[in-house]
Amino acid sequence: MKKILDYIQTIPPVDNSRDAMAQDHLNSLTKPPGSLGRLEELAIRFIRASVAYPPKIEKKTIFIMAGDHGVAREGVSAFPAEVTPQMVYNFLGGGAAINVLARHAGIDTVVVDMGVNADFQKAAGLVDKKVAKGTKNIAQEPAMTEEELERAVFAGIELAEKAAREGCHLIGTGDMGIANTTPSTALYCALLGLSPEAITGPGTGLDAKGVEHKTEVVKKILALHAPFSSPLDALRKVGGLEIAGLTGLVLGAAKSRVPVVVDGFISTAAAIVAVRSAPAVLERIFWAHLSNERGHRRVCEEVGIRPLFDLDMRLGEGTGSAMAMWLVEASIKVYNEMATFKKAGVSTAL
Amino acid sequence: MKKILDYIQTIPPVDNSRDAMAQDHLNSLTKPPGSLGRLEELAIRFIRASVAYPPKIEKKTIFIMAGDHGVAREGVSAFPAEVTPQMVYNFLGGGAAINVLARHAGIDTVVVDMGVNADFQKAAGLVDKKVAKGTKNIAQEPAMTEEELERAVFAGIELAEKAAREGCHLIGTGDMGIANTTPSTALYCALLGLSPEAITGPGTGLDAKGVEHKTEVVKKILALHAPFSSPLDALRKVGGLEIAGLTGLVLGAAKSRVPVVVDGFISTAAAIVAVRSAPAVLERIFWAHLSNERGHRRVCEEVGIRPLFDLDMRLGEGTGSAMAMWLVEASIKVYNEMATFKKAGVSTAL
Repeated sequence: MKKILDYIQTIPPVDNSRDAMAQDHLNSLTKPPGSLGRLEELAIRFIRASVAYPPKIEKKTIFIMAGDHGVAREGVSAFPAEVTPQMVYNFLGGGAAINVLARHAGIDTVVVDMGVNADFQKAAGLVDKKVAKGTKNIAQEPAMTEEELERAVFAGIELAEKAAREGCHLIGTGDMGIANTTPSTALYCALLGLSPEAITGPGTGLDAKGVEHKTEVVKKILALHAPFSSPLDALRKVGGLEIAGLTGLVLGAAKSRVPVVVDGFISTAAAIVAVRSAPAVLERIFWAHLSNERGHRRVCEEVGIRPLFDLDMRLGEGTGSAMAMWLVEASIKVYNEMATFKKAGVSTAL
Repeated sequence: MKKILDYIQTIPPVDNSRDAMAQDHLNSLTKPPGSLGRLEELAIRFIRASVAYPPKIEKKTIFIMAGDHGVAREGVSAFPAEVTPQMVYNFLGGGAAINVLARHAGIDTVVVDMGVNADFQKAAGLVDKKVAKGTKNIAQEPAMTEEELERAVFAGIELAEKAAREGCHLIGTGDMGIANTTPSTALYCALLGLSPEAITGPGTGLDAKGVEHKTEVVKKILALHAPFSSPLDALRKVGGLEIAGLTGLVLGAAKSRVPVVVDGFISTAAAIVAVRSAPAVLERIFWAHLSNERGHRRVCEEVGIRPLFDLDMRLGEGTGSAMAMWLVEASIKVYNEMATFKKAGVSTAL
């Protein structure tokens, strides 16, 4: 853990020094002040969290982190575990929802094998950061060792830092891992003190009986592993390898001063581990959308998150991130491309 | 009015015959059934309202309809009336928010002079449909004559029909007209039985005292013109030329079977006139966003509208339409481009 905690110490706070100038600029543009609402907020937030000024978003990347889960053997998912590697191939082939939405929004995708239970050939667009062939069954033992946690988190950190070095201006999170709503739900309970009954949901499509069983499994997981000495301790005991990778991605993006867009139910769990470990991260995050997975609304209320979209989506993969990244980019184009009252010869308010 | 009513009779109902096939196709794609939420609904809705199958969105156009308002003389706007023609020039120069967002979303814009109080030179991107140099002051007399109403509505109808002939697959509405939240508010009161106190808001930025005065003006308008014999009668008495043009645009799009995305506070008023006059139109509309203009939430609840975005925006111009059109296009790309479980070799649910 120490290496991760040391890294967290190096994350800088956001830079508020340009706020007033940015607000003045927004007010000089040909629109009633504030009338673009959250688009204006997004622009200010992006400027605060970025290095460059004027702000720019040329290169955007979503990291789709994939991992398997021992707890899938408890029958907590509507889909079989073999779907995790199958979907990795689907991502590489360009046929998944995230591929379509990322193309639509002009975003690159990188698939990261954090811990899939399969052997992949080398392939363009696939990064091998495999820590293990899936987590242990968290209903029986911790998901990973301390050393595995560190490797997984630093895999994410390194990818974010590398993306920053290569000129990426906006990073998005995405996930793939059959059964991963179960560790995410357990994490929310551990980190926020929520009850399994209040937030356990159907994931990819359990029926009422399935949700009941899953709730019992989450209760068993918490009883086995509590107390949790820290967010990272919870991540190690009840998390997942792709979740830990996403926690690292958020930390690495914050350290590199690249704003990061966080997807739905799984990604939010990973990001909350980062935020609760390193509060300076919070101001660097854009929360993409309210997931339709049952517990997400409660989690957002608890943490004070107001997501950008609410479209009843519950797919993961970074599908919410893709749309929100397009919106963040819209805000920066508004900031950079709109005419001022002066330049356009438009009269200001009476 | 008769010519408009005759036209309405020719608007076909949507075509539900492909619903089951489209739903089957969505369920065959590599995602848990229904997990893309409203994106899946958008795709089905688009297919229902369109001519072509498979669905396609190649050409998208936003019509920004501009008009002046005699009621501006009552001091109901934070901006002077000269801003209407000034903003027309800004649209033509590409410096307004709608230009930025339309470019970002790959949408063409057409500026329509429905009734601006200025003489424009011919310009690329500007369509002259001027009915008058603004409406009459609705606090004293009807906004327009029956003949003017007909001309304004048919201007919109003709533009929609022409766009359809030229291969446009998705039409968006936009507006520009200093003081036009006042006629829109009056229209909502007339059409939906809402009270001026409940829905009158600050528009481009009135203070509390300004809103109070505007509320009194709306009450005076309603007292002067009530009762209203039909939605079109209300549009003629208390509407605006750009609002009537947008009503026509929605009717013409529906007749041409081109789905239409309706922007915020002003456009919704125009669209509700269309829907209340021609119920078959309702299923052909996508409601872009919840405007931050005070009355819009109440109006949406009243009519049963669940807008796609809620970003505290209150600018008009079609800025909400631009974003929503991008989202509708996303849904069609998902429909057309995602791999099926079979093709991708991905296992289905257990």
